[in-house]
Amino acid sequence: MKTSDISPLDPTAATPFYRQVYDRFRAAIASGLLKPGDRIPSSRALTKELGLARGTIETAYSLLAAEGYIEARGQAGTIVTPGLKPRTLIDSPLPRSSVVSTSLRPDSILPFQMGLPALDAFPRKIWARLGARCVRAMQPSDMVHPSVHGLPGLRSEIASYLQVSRGISCSPSQVFITSGYRNTIALVAHVLLRVGDRVWLEDPGYPPTREILGQMNIASVAVPVDRDGIVISAAIKAAPRARAAVTTPAHQSPLGVSLALPRRLELLDWAVRNGAWVIEDDYDGEYRYVSRPLPALKSLDRDGRVLYAGTFSKVLFPGIRLAYLVVPLELVERFEQISDVLAGGSPQITQAIVTAFIREGHFARHIQRMRKLYAGRREAAAAGLESVLGKHMRIDDQPGGMHLILRLLGQQSDRRLSARMREAGLYAEALSNWTTDASSGSALLLNFTNIDSQRTAETLARRILPLIDGRSS
Amino acid sequence: MKTSDISPLDPTAATPFYRQVYDRFRAAIASGLLKPGDRIPSSRALTKELGLARGTIETAYSLLAAEGYIEARGQAGTIVTPGLKPRTLIDSPLPRSSVVSTSLRPDSILPFQMGLPALDAFPRKIWARLGARCVRAMQPSDMVHPSVHGLPGLRSEIASYLQVSRGISCSPSQVFITSGYRNTIALVAHVLLRVGDRVWLEDPGYPPTREILGQMNIASVAVPVDRDGIVISAAIKAAPRARAAVTTPAHQSPLGVSLALPRRLELLDWAVRNGAWVIEDDYDGEYRYVSRPLPALKSLDRDGRVLYAGTFSKVLFPGIRLAYLVVPLELVERFEQISDVLAGGSPQITQAIVTAFIREGHFARHIQRMRKLYAGRREAAAAGLESVLGKHMRIDDQPGGMHLILRLLGQQSDRRLSARMREAGLYAEALSNWTTDASSGSALLLNFTNIDSQRTAETLARRILPLIDGRSS
Repeated sequence: MKTSDISPLDPTAATPFYRQVYDRFRAAIASGLLKPGDRIPSSRALTKELGLARGTIETAYSLLAAEGYIEARGQAGTIVTPGLKPRTLIDSPLPRSSVVSTSLRPDSILPFQMGLPALDAFPRKIWARLGARCVRAMQPSDMVHPSVHGLPGLRSEIASYLQVSRGISCSPSQVFITSGYRNTIALVAHVLLRVGDRVWLEDPGYPPTREILGQMNIASVAVPVDRDGIVISAAIKAAPRARAAVTTPAHQSPLGVSLALPRRLELLDWAVRNGAWVIEDDYDGEYRYVSRPLPALKSLDRDGRVLYAGTFSKVLFPGIRLAYLVVPLELVERFEQISDVLAGGSPQITQAIVTAFIREGHFARHIQRMRKLYAGRREAAAAGLESVLGKHMRIDDQPGGMHLILRLLGQQSDRRLSARMREAGLYAEALSNWTTDASSGSALLLNFTNIDSQRTAETLARRILPLIDGRSS
Repeated sequence: MKTSDISPLDPTAATPFYRQVYDRFRAAIASGLLKPGDRIPSSRALTKELGLARGTIETAYSLLAAEGYIEARGQAGTIVTPGLKPRTLIDSPLPRSSVVSTSLRPDSILPFQMGLPALDAFPRKIWARLGARCVRAMQPSDMVHPSVHGLPGLRSEIASYLQVSRGISCSPSQVFITSGYRNTIALVAHVLLRVGDRVWLEDPGYPPTREILGQMNIASVAVPVDRDGIVISAAIKAAPRARAAVTTPAHQSPLGVSLALPRRLELLDWAVRNGAWVIEDDYDGEYRYVSRPLPALKSLDRDGRVLYAGTFSKVLFPGIRLAYLVVPLELVERFEQISDVLAGGSPQITQAIVTAFIREGHFARHIQRMRKLYAGRREAAAAGLESVLGKHMRIDDQPGGMHLILRLLGQQSDRRLSARMREAGLYAEALSNWTTDASSGSALLLNFTNIDSQRTAETLARRILPLIDGRSS
């Protein structure tokens, strides 16, 4: 195939370039323009031809290679995989595997993309100034292995912050820095759980928790969620002797309800009686708009049964790769021992920048600003979507969080609609992918933090409208 | 206890401040000056009194709390743990637990400290310039989740580097960025190994490998090492059906010998016949002084059985927390799937800085410079140690690496001597802690990369001399 065979890329499309390149190769293979065994241009050559960054082409090629469409053959270059059947290509939709189907993480920014804070509102200038200062201040002592438990200064700042903002009393030695929520959960599982143990998970619930525990051969027990949060009585009925429970008390993920106080006490009581552990995933506890943020469940924990998982992905940004775990005092030594074996520690530089950001007051100010901004953006996004899509969807009321829940009316399939939206360059999670319970209903989860106005929401909603069943061309 | 009861700290001592504070509290508790139940000063108060950084005091307190000497009691402050028996304190030497005994990672820099490159010779100005540039260039697209497999640009730079320097042909999609060697091994184990599988490990060998596999319930098979490296025939005899082998072919860790070509072929042949995997830990393959670096074992791998583990800890510095794994093409998809579940990805900023550092040629220049520098420092360190300690030790000849092996003559215990050295503020690893085989002998492992002259080596050797049995006062 010659490069000229590739149809021109569209710089105005929502689809990122790597994806466009990827799509064009798949199309060329599916159509027979590229045949099994054909040599494709080197990434260097294609980079030059298309005037794109090398990384863009490499990414597209990686994706194609990973999915088996192309194969590197050393000196002989890269070829279309011999024996490939064009028919199967046409039918296969988005790249996904059974393992990651619900947690595919795109590496570009799409409208409504889940899990992202307002990237436009982050104080990048302040961040760059602190970052440049930290990188220049690097001493030999900063170049050695950082403590695997985290930079002492950062652990100490987090302990103070949690006291003030979340009502949690802990010493810095109880705070363990991790590289993200997945890393936190894996660490907890390594220390506290054994193969075959059962763990209560909220259903619907954040899919990665189930995936990670599954990977570690730990059994999940799906527990229903109602308007008061996870239904403890149902959990006790289903698995009274579970070793642990993972819960999102501030705003249930994804339904957004808060765990009611009687439920909180019931959960702690169960944990104490059974020597079980409660993992509180407080990923967005700060983002409550109707009243003050609720104190963390951990603040009620008199008996040392709650492990508190926090993250900087939502209050700063995901690319920083820093999260933390607060463990009860009596578990500190066990967590230190296992971290010493398994963890490498997080980079000194990212920890140093975040420490300075908190210490100098930018962190608290940023959270305050975001709380106001998100309250406004939530309202604007809801109004914009409602005005265009109101006949087809109903938006849940929610006290906080970073996404809207759009209940699909009629017989709409959330999976089908979200797949179409992804194809159209819009991001949507289907509630059905977050649950094992068919009665949860059909709904889209749409992040609103990057929707800057009602007008933007309306424009995007008009791109969704034709994708709805019975409305499409 | 009043703060005035704490004996003054010594700013000139090799012992870091946090350690001095820690030692003084332990001594105060052991002597009965502080009694169980006594309240100790808040870290804030002590910080002020001693004029040290808050983090220093917090670290000391964390250590004391983690070891059970003190307890935080919320509003009531921090107290000496009730029921503590002063006698047991006096006898317990350094803080360590059975799990981490061989891999205790100090968070300050001690003379001879293993695993560190020459920190004084790192081009910090260039690094700071690139770092400041990258942090200022941060765009919203850099703030989202970085690809969990690594930044495309970095994967591509590593693939090119490995081709040129280590004779390895691979595409960027085969390169997975990890947060360090431990993370690499855990990832490999998650993808390729199951509970109960057996893995060949070199004996003596790098202790963390055994610890991580043990934590994941994978059985290690200790395989002897001779002057040609790991003895494949012995391994086949002991566990012909092992699922994998971990080896350090360039310079065996810790003995420094290179894996001979016939052994390399024997190992690959075994892997192909048995469908087993070979994990090549090439942590310091670049640092060879007697001739050109040997090509990697991976360069001989025609059948896709070798996984290549590299790291930036030795060629840049450990605090960067970046390493990588090259997997055979046919494993790419499985590694992507498991990484998608377990990994969070490494921070965008550290990856961006390293990418720029490699792309602009600093990386290749730095390695070249270090190769020359280390050859000189190795010689100087050996000469200095020999001149003072020659009667008590014999230094192994080695073609490369970053540490010397000092064989202890007579009945010296390497464990006892290394413990005394640590107490005296010097770092030494005991060979006995790296082996399960009593016949490996008694030897110290001393990193030489931060020993800047023969004179420094002599000065340090004179601090070791009185610690030797039969020579101490």
